[in-house]
Amino acid sequence: MSGEVLRDAFSSRLVAVAESTEQMLDRLLSPHLLPGEKTRPPRLLEAIRYGSLGGGKRLRPFLLVETARMLGAEGEGVLRAACALEMIHCYSLVHDDLPAMDNDDLRRGRPTCHKAFDEACAILAGDALLTYAFDVIADTPTHPDPAVRADLTVMLARAAGLGGMVGGQALDLEAESRKEPHSREFVMLMQSMKTGALLLNAVEAGARIGGADAAQRAALSHYGALLGAAFQVADDILDAEGDTAALGKRAGKDADRNKATLVAVLGIDEARKRRDALAREAIEALSGFGDKASILVEAARFTALRKS
Amino acid sequence: MSGEVLRDAFSSRLVAVAESTEQMLDRLLSPHLLPGEKTRPPRLLEAIRYGSLGGGKRLRPFLLVETARMLGAEGEGVLRAACALEMIHCYSLVHDDLPAMDNDDLRRGRPTCHKAFDEACAILAGDALLTYAFDVIADTPTHPDPAVRADLTVMLARAAGLGGMVGGQALDLEAESRKEPHSREFVMLMQSMKTGALLLNAVEAGARIGGADAAQRAALSHYGALLGAAFQVADDILDAEGDTAALGKRAGKDADRNKATLVAVLGIDEARKRRDALAREAIEALSGFGDKASILVEAARFTALRKS
Repeated sequence: MSGEVLRDAFSSRLVAVAESTEQMLDRLLSPHLLPGEKTRPPRLLEAIRYGSLGGGKRLRPFLLVETARMLGAEGEGVLRAACALEMIHCYSLVHDDLPAMDNDDLRRGRPTCHKAFDEACAILAGDALLTYAFDVIADTPTHPDPAVRADLTVMLARAAGLGGMVGGQALDLEAESRKEPHSREFVMLMQSMKTGALLLNAVEAGARIGGADAAQRAALSHYGALLGAAFQVADDILDAEGDTAALGKRAGKDADRNKATLVAVLGIDEARKRRDALAREAIEALSGFGDKASILVEAARFTALRKS
Repeated sequence: MSGEVLRDAFSSRLVAVAESTEQMLDRLLSPHLLPGEKTRPPRLLEAIRYGSLGGGKRLRPFLLVETARMLGAEGEGVLRAACALEMIHCYSLVHDDLPAMDNDDLRRGRPTCHKAFDEACAILAGDALLTYAFDVIADTPTHPDPAVRADLTVMLARAAGLGGMVGGQALDLEAESRKEPHSREFVMLMQSMKTGALLLNAVEAGARIGGADAAQRAALSHYGALLGAAFQVADDILDAEGDTAALGKRAGKDADRNKATLVAVLGIDEARKRRDALAREAIEALSGFGDKASILVEAARFTALRKS
């Protein structure tokens, strides 16, 4: 396929998976399907839906779904696992935006959850999304084999936990209060935890569901780690040069806060080179899959070169 | 056995399980055993340990361990499952104490987590405990059968989620802002979610691990629900008549805040009668187990009559 045809195939898959994700999230978070139907406080459910529906590229669900699909697995169960990941991502945004954390007012072009509701509601909405993600991923409809479901649960908990997202956010907050410049090693470690771990988990969960063999698993893990790193450098570059309207969140905030970013450590030119090199290496990691990996190849390119 | 001998057997088991729980939590939360060893921010780990070690009666682990033991299951795996429950309990205390929630300064006789550290740290410590609980419960050492681990994960997520703890806390916060008095039905529903669900889960998880049959499961679920209700009435009574030193948290705070409690709804005499009736019914639910249930029988009595 030519580059343009590939990009078109990629774009239509990206849109299709985002739509399926939105529909499945809407179903999973509907008053009739949640456990504890009659007992649910309606305002909290509203805050949960506000924090998770109607926005985002759904890149994590996309990576999970497309990795599984390349290996021959698709259907509702795959989408449920993808939604569990997205719930974890959304919970982390709701909590990270809180006044005690990054104190952000704007997210995806709308007021953040604690602005639209209140702080207690945003804390509980995040807690509920985090908790519900494990309900969804471990439950029978996600996969017929309980061993796969238990594995997916542990993998997700590790990506989200102290050695992953939560730990990365703590390192990031600690970094802000430092006076001295951050080392390149520190920034890379923090980023691999804060945003890299869940992107890597999306690819690895897709590989687990798709029944990848050891060699395929290794190649896909390599791809996922490189793509995660590329994603975060691209994010740092977008923040440094982007504008608030296109991003849907406040731009330039990293520089304001002595945030640990690769742009701050490397300068913007070196950061761009690194982003491009990471995307190239991510694509190379897929060489063993041949043409079947074309959507994941394009995903690496998109992740590096996206404008928002 | 006479009443006194039973109480002694119960007390020594309560102390023994609390000690085993403390040791296992200490191991699970030690820097060397956590996933992502080198990457962990030390201050966050300190806050997590502060929020979960060195305190509490460990009633939930006790109920899980003793239910499983009555059915013939014991060992490290059972204790791991018990610790996962306790982590969920501890996370809920850390988040509920936050300024945006119950705004408490004192817990188990010490400053609350956000007072000893800071708010961001307390939010993240709670998130990390909640996440790690699912890592621990779904992971291989907890039970050889992945179907049991997947079941335990879903059960725990439901007890902690929107139809359980998180939903109950949201109802409780919404209730505080109301002017009109709360109905008895509302208070009972809120309490069955906020504190009842996790106590019930402790018994049900013990039953699942112990391989209870359908009749045993039904009896134990009935016991767990009644014990959970008795626990919360006892808590309301303790708050109304207790003193801060004995409780290790501020007493009398319920009345200050128009909190939805059964003492407020029923008056203290009726509340005491209800507490005693619930404990009696909980004990009756165990009749099919005969003498083997003596520790759980005593647990119901203790739950209703404890002084802190």
